[in-house]
Amino acid sequence: MRPYTVGIDIGGTNSKFGLADREGNVFAQGSLPMSDFEDFRDFFDSLSDAVRQCVGTSPKDHQLVGIGVGAANGNYYQGTIESAVNLKWKGVLPIGKLFTEEFKVPCLVTNDANAAAVGEMIYGNARGMKDFVIITLGTGLGSGFVCGGALINGHNGIAGELGHTTVNQNGRHCNCGKRGCLETYVSATGIKRTVYKLLADHLEPSELRGISFEDLNTKMITDAANRADAVAKEAFEYTGRILGMKLSDTVVHTDPEAIFLFGGLALAGPLIFEPTIYHLEKNLMPQFRGRVKVLPSGLENQRAPILGASSLVWDHLEKLKANGY
Amino acid sequence: MRPYTVGIDIGGTNSKFGLADREGNVFAQGSLPMSDFEDFRDFFDSLSDAVRQCVGTSPKDHQLVGIGVGAANGNYYQGTIESAVNLKWKGVLPIGKLFTEEFKVPCLVTNDANAAAVGEMIYGNARGMKDFVIITLGTGLGSGFVCGGALINGHNGIAGELGHTTVNQNGRHCNCGKRGCLETYVSATGIKRTVYKLLADHLEPSELRGISFEDLNTKMITDAANRADAVAKEAFEYTGRILGMKLSDTVVHTDPEAIFLFGGLALAGPLIFEPTIYHLEKNLMPQFRGRVKVLPSGLENQRAPILGASSLVWDHLEKLKANGY
Repeated sequence: MRPYTVGIDIGGTNSKFGLADREGNVFAQGSLPMSDFEDFRDFFDSLSDAVRQCVGTSPKDHQLVGIGVGAANGNYYQGTIESAVNLKWKGVLPIGKLFTEEFKVPCLVTNDANAAAVGEMIYGNARGMKDFVIITLGTGLGSGFVCGGALINGHNGIAGELGHTTVNQNGRHCNCGKRGCLETYVSATGIKRTVYKLLADHLEPSELRGISFEDLNTKMITDAANRADAVAKEAFEYTGRILGMKLSDTVVHTDPEAIFLFGGLALAGPLIFEPTIYHLEKNLMPQFRGRVKVLPSGLENQRAPILGASSLVWDHLEKLKANGY
Repeated sequence: MRPYTVGIDIGGTNSKFGLADREGNVFAQGSLPMSDFEDFRDFFDSLSDAVRQCVGTSPKDHQLVGIGVGAANGNYYQGTIESAVNLKWKGVLPIGKLFTEEFKVPCLVTNDANAAAVGEMIYGNARGMKDFVIITLGTGLGSGFVCGGALINGHNGIAGELGHTTVNQNGRHCNCGKRGCLETYVSATGIKRTVYKLLADHLEPSELRGISFEDLNTKMITDAANRADAVAKEAFEYTGRILGMKLSDTVVHTDPEAIFLFGGLALAGPLIFEPTIYHLEKNLMPQFRGRVKVLPSGLENQRAPILGASSLVWDHLEKLKANGY
């Protein structure tokens, strides 16, 4: 029998799921809109039915070996989703236990950035690496740490919140209630805020002056920078400077071989990588200089959430096997 | 046979060694001045002879099971000491291999702060903990991370250099060549620099005005603060504020259960713990608040280097056993 896994990404708008083999082929997938469900149990039953239908389409010689779930505020130790701000169901949702009961296979749960880290190790550009960091650049900034080949979960299961390290104690207001958090500068939202700050402070003409804050997105800023728009270029320079500076602190914590950048902002290529690497190296303690690679993620943006979740299962099974179970 | 280990601490002035059992009893010890040796091989031969003599005094029913070495710039992966600034022998010193050849037992090498971390886990206040950080406050600031029960070594074996995270890019000059590193503010030397800055900036009378920079030490500043000296009290407040602020970044990296403070500055008790905890909590992302303990090390300062080095062996043997070897 050929083993395969189900990877599920619980998002604020949709939940996506797919069947994936060890090589990262996604051979069936589906999604479910979140708005249809007032009650978590109704949502779970519908998701479970949809996954079961999808599993029913798998070839006869294929065997389901586990389910992985990535979700904001996913707790690896408990198999739960806890007080997620992007979901309407509050409290502790025991999604891992429910899936295990339904499908009689292990179900692993973690937050989306940790899932991305394991996905990068199992399927992506971190294959063969034992020490690396992934930075996910979306609406916010998430991160996942792998040290000695193992995901760092932490004592409470909430490790890897680099987005809430402090750049400036009197800086920009953050959703978390603090001020000056890294993600208020370095994320899709952060670079928009930087563009607006630059438009306010300077007189340069810019094609971005005609776009409202709500309409502005990373792609527009990237395209403008590639057309040599001074404000857009400066916004990337500023974003990379802050990211590089803060990553220099991160590097001396865990001494990673590589840092992967994932998400919309990372797709801007040299616009973000060049200033990030320059300011990382400039701020590093000398004995670390020239030793850490800053690389794009090897996971394609669209499939990454399903593969990240799916990879939790392979990682779990392979660690059990390595320990003689 | 009762198993025991040799713990060796290679320092700039002396090397200390001792025999220790699993309970942390040090039942024989000695030391060797470093100034006597021009050549590393001469030093090793004398150290090896001294250790052998010490081992010869152990009871007949005791068996040597391993040697641990703590040294600035100790490399765990290679068993070497590399380009240590506090030793006169440059290049790569293969001390682990030499001890293994001499004594026919495993020899583990790491840097002194990492040895302190393992020591805290095996013998100290971190017994039973799987996720914690130790901060060693001496001439500089060292640190060691334990995550999921394992010491974080990093890709190059140089993880845990918190002393060289940046407080202020334009701040105090650091031995490493950078400016504004954490250890230039938070260490025995850092608080002396702060006292001198305060004496320069302010007009308050202070008993510390009569002491030269070279003569001033942490104990004098602690004693003055305990006698309500305004400058000494302010120096501790300032030191704790910077340490707490930077530890809030560290906590969101690895989500530790506890942070241990070790060394002379930590002996000042509430003078350093109170401002550190206050500013740590104030700067933490809300979901981490109230969850991390800041505690004094459980290792007595004098025996800590020998116990830290010795603990590397127990940790190594117990991990082998847990993995079925």
